[in-house]
Amino acid sequence: MPYEFKAVRRVEFSETDMAGIVHFSNFFRYMETAEHAFYRSLGFSVTLNDFDPPLGFPRVHAACDYKKPLRFEDLLEIHILVKEKRSRVLNYLFRFNKLPREGSADEPTLVATGVLTVVCVAHDRNGKMEAVSIPADLANKIEIAPIELLQVS
Amino acid sequence: MPYEFKAVRRVEFSETDMAGIVHFSNFFRYMETAEHAFYRSLGFSVTLNDFDPPLGFPRVHAACDYKKPLRFEDLLEIHILVKEKRSRVLNYLFRFNKLPREGSADEPTLVATGVLTVVCVAHDRNGKMEAVSIPADLANKIEIAPIELLQVS
Amino acid sequence: MPYEFKAVRRVEFSETDMAGIVHFSNFFRYMETAEHAFYRSLGFSVTLNDFDPPLGFPRVHAACDYKKPLRFEDLLEIHILVKEKRSRVLNYLFRFNKLPREGSADEPTLVATGVLTVVCVAHDRNGKMEAVSIPADLANKIEIAPIELLQVS
Amino acid sequence: MPYEFKAVRRVEFSETDMAGIVHFSNFFRYMETAEHAFYRSLGFSVTLNDFDPPLGFPRVHAACDYKKPLRFEDLLEIHILVKEKRSRVLNYLFRFNKLPREGSADEPTLVATGVLTVVCVAHDRNGKMEAVSIPADLANKIEIAPIELLQVS
Repeated sequence: MPYEFKAVRRVEFSETDMAGIVHFSNFFRYMETAEHAFYRSLGFSVTLNDFDPPLGFPRVHAACDYKKPLRFEDLLEIHILVKEKRSRVLNYLFRFNKLPREGSADEPTLVATGVLTVVCVAHDRNGKMEAVSIPADLANKIEIAPIELLQVS
Repeated sequence: MPYEFKAVRRVEFSETDMAGIVHFSNFFRYMETAEHAFYRSLGFSVTLNDFDPPLGFPRVHAACDYKKPLRFEDLLEIHILVKEKRSRVLNYLFRFNKLPREGSADEPTLVATGVLTVVCVAHDRNGKMEAVSIPADLANKIEIAPIELLQVS
Repeated sequence: MPYEFKAVRRVEFSETDMAGIVHFSNFFRYMETAEHAFYRSLGFSVTLNDFDPPLGFPRVHAACDYKKPLRFEDLLEIHILVKEKRSRVLNYLFRFNKLPREGSADEPTLVATGVLTVVCVAHDRNGKMEAVSIPADLANKIEIAPIELLQVS
Repeated sequence: MPYEFKAVRRVEFSETDMAGIVHFSNFFRYMETAEHAFYRSLGFSVTLNDFDPPLGFPRVHAACDYKKPLRFEDLLEIHILVKEKRSRVLNYLFRFNKLPREGSADEPTLVATGVLTVVCVAHDRNGKMEAVSIPADLANKIEIAPIELLQVS
């Protein structure tokens, strides 16, 4: 299904802060983890080194809404969905679900939601970036998620 | 002026990524840096350890819009402004300005803007959090910035 | 085998720096990742919350020797070995191996080695730490690795 | 004095962990902060972009000994000293001093010491690194600290 991907990771000690919960900035790293795993699942690396000039996907917008605390050793599922696809821009929706402990009958808990807007750029020899079309090989593999999956309660 | 604060810091090597620019997640750390420096400028520490039960300010919403790349050793001014003040909630606006190199006549460059919504909570003995009113000693020192300062172009 | 554990993770974009390689400080986070996974494999959480007073394992010494660069999306095996066990102190050795890409016939490459010395402490109600004996339930499950595994070339 | 530099910074919330203290990995970032500020104080940037091929200073060894906890909002002085200078290698010693709160008559407290060994490399067009001599312009400005300053108690 080329409109979503689920990555799972366990919260690490170094991701917590003195309030005893995951520092809010780390959810943005988690978003990127799922985004890059999504590209890999499609056979692409985000560095897109095979292209000349080299391409990249800098972020133009990122946001997160925090609903529940996430703690050390919690199992986190990062669910990425394609919300919008334009020639040079991709817009993602994220759901962060805390998974139940192994052997528990609990349901996953939604702890946060997020959005991320990335633009495809080419880097010239001087390090300047210019927005360009997403390569067809990648764009053709990505589609927009069904509308009912994009509802955020 | 209890509605704004400006913190300045130099971008560190460990804050960059392989794209050669500051990793987007670090702007959320920069927001917090300015927020806490703002509290200190008012005579408060964000940990508010003097209160019983202890208080904290978890984030419920954070967002950032990226306009220009920020690089190693750039001088960054983080401008925090109070956008909204409710009994239990504070809403901040941020402007990230890259300052000109020492001796340069260049103007500061707006590289990003951000928002952060924090809620005041009390921690009970079991680590549970409950939203509570911001202590009057702090709330009374904070006011909403003039509307013309809160325009984001 | 209660003297070693191997954790595997893929290098993330946010762990790289503008030199295009993993920032050296992240190897210390990787050490801790493997250490905590080792405790979990023995049925313990490093937070040891079940104990009264609560215990912790602050670090007293950490070191790393870097041999080869590690890059984005590399698969990293973090091999932790118990080097020394005393009543209040554990000393670990780490080998960081870059694993070959899936489908490759290459051998793993040693990219770094490390050491970490942790001491068991009890936290009193005022946050003060005092060195105490490692709980027998944990200490009895950990043994020192065979000497031939502890050679660092 | 081209054999030492002192950088001061305040501990940030995002640098703490759930144990309530600065995460041990951050001391390695602090080392680098002081190292780069030292180069800047000599008129150099660590990126050394003016050289062709571009130079860098990857780390080959890093170590830290932790003596006291460091906490949120503590004022930290990072004292870097040149311990050894070879044609391609620099070896630094660090003292981490917690400074007394403003207005306090307390003495600084040594919270940690560290070492860092860096090697000068040239990056060729394919990203390969080769050890090369430190440029004379930089090497000539750096000298080894007096022996009595390099004692670590």
